[in-house]
Amino acid sequence: MKRIEGGVTAPKGYKAAGVRAGIKPSATKKDMAIIVSDVPAVCAGTFTLNVVKAAPVFWDKMIVNEQETAQAILVNSGIANACTGQEGLDNCKKEAEKVSELFGIAPEKVLVASTGVIGAQLKMDVIEKGIEMLSTCVADTVEAADDAATAILTTDTRKKEIAVTCEIDGKTVTIGGMCKGAGMIHPNMGTMLAFVTTDAAVDKKTLQALLLEEVQDTFNMVSVDGDTSTNDSLLVLCNGLAGNAVLTKEMDGYETFKEALHEVLEYLAKAIAADGEGCTRLFEVICNGAASKEDARIISKSVVCSSLTKAAVFGKDANWGRILCAMGYSGVDFDPEKVDITLACENDSLDIVKDGIATDYSEEKATEILSCNPVQAILDIHAGDATATAWGCDLTYEYVTINADYRS
Amino acid sequence: MKRIEGGVTAPKGYKAAGVRAGIKPSATKKDMAIIVSDVPAVCAGTFTLNVVKAAPVFWDKMIVNEQETAQAILVNSGIANACTGQEGLDNCKKEAEKVSELFGIAPEKVLVASTGVIGAQLKMDVIEKGIEMLSTCVADTVEAADDAATAILTTDTRKKEIAVTCEIDGKTVTIGGMCKGAGMIHPNMGTMLAFVTTDAAVDKKTLQALLLEEVQDTFNMVSVDGDTSTNDSLLVLCNGLAGNAVLTKEMDGYETFKEALHEVLEYLAKAIAADGEGCTRLFEVICNGAASKEDARIISKSVVCSSLTKAAVFGKDANWGRILCAMGYSGVDFDPEKVDITLACENDSLDIVKDGIATDYSEEKATEILSCNPVQAILDIHAGDATATAWGCDLTYEYVTINADYRS
Repeated sequence: MKRIEGGVTAPKGYKAAGVRAGIKPSATKKDMAIIVSDVPAVCAGTFTLNVVKAAPVFWDKMIVNEQETAQAILVNSGIANACTGQEGLDNCKKEAEKVSELFGIAPEKVLVASTGVIGAQLKMDVIEKGIEMLSTCVADTVEAADDAATAILTTDTRKKEIAVTCEIDGKTVTIGGMCKGAGMIHPNMGTMLAFVTTDAAVDKKTLQALLLEEVQDTFNMVSVDGDTSTNDSLLVLCNGLAGNAVLTKEMDGYETFKEALHEVLEYLAKAIAADGEGCTRLFEVICNGAASKEDARIISKSVVCSSLTKAAVFGKDANWGRILCAMGYSGVDFDPEKVDITLACENDSLDIVKDGIATDYSEEKATEILSCNPVQAILDIHAGDATATAWGCDLTYEYVTINADYRS
Repeated sequence: MKRIEGGVTAPKGYKAAGVRAGIKPSATKKDMAIIVSDVPAVCAGTFTLNVVKAAPVFWDKMIVNEQETAQAILVNSGIANACTGQEGLDNCKKEAEKVSELFGIAPEKVLVASTGVIGAQLKMDVIEKGIEMLSTCVADTVEAADDAATAILTTDTRKKEIAVTCEIDGKTVTIGGMCKGAGMIHPNMGTMLAFVTTDAAVDKKTLQALLLEEVQDTFNMVSVDGDTSTNDSLLVLCNGLAGNAVLTKEMDGYETFKEALHEVLEYLAKAIAADGEGCTRLFEVICNGAASKEDARIISKSVVCSSLTKAAVFGKDANWGRILCAMGYSGVDFDPEKVDITLACENDSLDIVKDGIATDYSEEKATEILSCNPVQAILDIHAGDATATAWGCDLTYEYVTINADYRS
C-alpha cells in the first residue's frame, strides 16, 4: 500500500467539483460539492445513531439499503437540513432530481449530504443553481477533488483528503477519501461527513460489513466535544473500474483492501480530531492492557472526552489526576493501583504514573512533551492484552468563541 | 417548612469552625473546616461511583457502613488525598486520631473529606496544626458555619449554605447544609463535597435509603463539566436533639422530613451548578412528557451536559438545534416530530420549537430570555407524564482559563 497525491478523484472513473452557490453568508467560501462515478458503484454507508436524524440521512439510508449501486454524492455546507420535517425530505428528492436531470443519473442513484445550521430549510433555487454550476466544472483532476474537499467544510480550518493505492488480484486499486469535521463531533456509526471512493470491485454485503467493522476503530474513536451530530454520514462508492475480481471476505485481496480502507478511514478520522473546533493539538489516547477491546475503547474515549483533561492539554499541564479520574468514571472496572500512565510525543516519552501513584517525574519535561503536536497519553491497566486508540483535541478559548455564536 | 438564617450550626447541638492551616498556597484562604455534634449522630452518606476513589471516601464508607453514629466531619481543601495509596489511607486515620485527641471523640466517629489537587499527599504537620486551630474556635454560631462553608471551597466563587426548619412530632426540627463544587462536577451518587446536619431523630436505615432516593433528583442531576470526581461525598448527621420520636418511613413526620431534606439538597445542588467553574448563568433543563422518570432524567441531563448547548447559552444564542441534537443522542428513544421546546426565565417565556420544527419566534426576544440568570429550557417529548430537572451552567472562556493551569 502507498500514499499518493489527491483525494476522491484519484481512483479510476471518478469526477468531482466544488463551487460557491451562495448558501453560506460568506462571499468567498465554497459551499457545494459533488462526486460522480462514470459507472454505477456499489455503495455502503454508516450513519448517525442520534434519534434526531437529518433529512439526508433518511434519504441515503434508503438508497444504501435498497439499491445495489449509487453513482453520485451531492453535498452542501452551510445548512444541515436537519429538523426540517417533510419539506426537508422533499428537498432531498428535489436535489436528486436536479442532479439526475443534469448528469443523466437516475435520482435513486444520487446520495445527498448536508452540514451546517440545524433547523433551516435549504433554499432550493440556490441549491439548483449550485447543481448547474457543478455540472459545468466536474473533472477527474486533483484540483477538482481539492475543490470538493474545500466546499464541504464548515468551521474546519483546512481540507481533509487522502488517496492510497494497493495491488489486488494483479490490479492497481486506488482508494480516495475526504471528510469534514470541526464541531458537534462525537461520531456514533459514522462522522459528520466522510466520503470514500474506490475503483476496487467489492461485493456489496462484504463492503457494508467491512465498513461497520472499520468505523468502530476509526471514526467512532474520535471526539471533539462529545456532541453526536444529527447528520453524521460515511459513504463509500466502489465502481470496480480497477478490474479486480469482485472481492468477498474469503478472497486473497480482502485483507489488503481492508488495510488500505483502514488507512484512509483512520487518516480522515485523525484529521477531524486534529482540526477540532478551536484546537491547537491532536490528543491521542492509547489504552493498553485491557481485558477486552471494548474496555480499551471505552477507557481511551473517556479520557479523550474529559473537558478537564482537554483543558489541561491546552495548558500543557501534566495534571494526570484528571486522566486517572476520567478512566475511573468510564464505566470499566479496573484496579487503580495497577495503572501506568506515560506521556509521549514523536521523539520523547515520560512515565508520569506507575502503579497508580505519581513517579518522580520532571514537570518541565512533562510540559515540553505536552507542547508537542500530536501529543499522546499511553495508559496501561494491566488487566489483559487488548488495546485501543482514541483521538481528540484540546479545549481552548477559541472553541468557546466559535460556539458562543455560531449562527451569526 | 421555612428557610432560616445560617448553615450547618443551625440545628441544635452542632458546632463548626473554618481556619487557614496553610494547605493552599494562598496566604489568606481558609482551607480546613470541622463540624462537630455534641452527641453521637446517626450518619448516612453517598459517595462517588468513580472506580478511582480518594482515600477519605474509603474511610467514610467504612464508618457509614459499620457505625450507627458519627460525631464529627473534618474537611480540608487544597489537596484531594486521591491516588495517594496506603499513605493516603493512613493519613485519614491520623486525621481522625488527632480529632479524637483534641475533641474527645472516638476516631471511628470522625468522618473526613478532602478536595483539591489529585495525587499529592496531605502534609500531616500542617493538617495537625489545623486541627488544633479548629479545636480552639469551634462554635455554634452563624459565623462559625460561614467560616466552615468558606474553608471547604476551591475554585468556587462563593460559599453555599442553607438552613430550614419544619415541625415533626410536635417538635421543631432544623436541617442545615453546606457544600462546594465548581469543577470536576458530574456527581454520580453524591457530589464533590456536601454536608448536612440535623437535630431530627431518624432511624439509620431510613436515613440511608432516603438519602439514596433524594440524591437521584438533586446532586445526581447537576453537571458542570461531565467529569465525575474521585472524591464526591455527601454526608448527613442526625443527632436527634430536636426530641422527636425516631423517624421511620411509616411515621407521620417522614414526608415532612423528606420534603425539608429535599429542599436542602436541591438548594445545594443548584448552588453548585450556579457557581460552576467560569460560569455566568445557571442553566436549568426541565424535561416533561417522558415515558418514565429515568427517561426524563437522561434527556434533561444530556442537554445540560452538551458543550455546544452550554456555549450557546453563554453566547445567548437560541441555537435550539443543539438542544434537540443533545436530546437525540441521549440514548432515549422518542419521536423528534413531537418535541416542543420553550425557553424561559423568571418573568417570561418563549416557545421556540413546536412538533420538532422552529416556531416563528423572535430572535431578539430569545436573546433577551437567554440573558437571564437562571435561564430555563423546558422540553416536552409528549410520550408520557414523567418529568425531571437537571442543572448546569454555561461554558465560558473562564472555564478554560481556570482549567488550563489549575495546579499553578
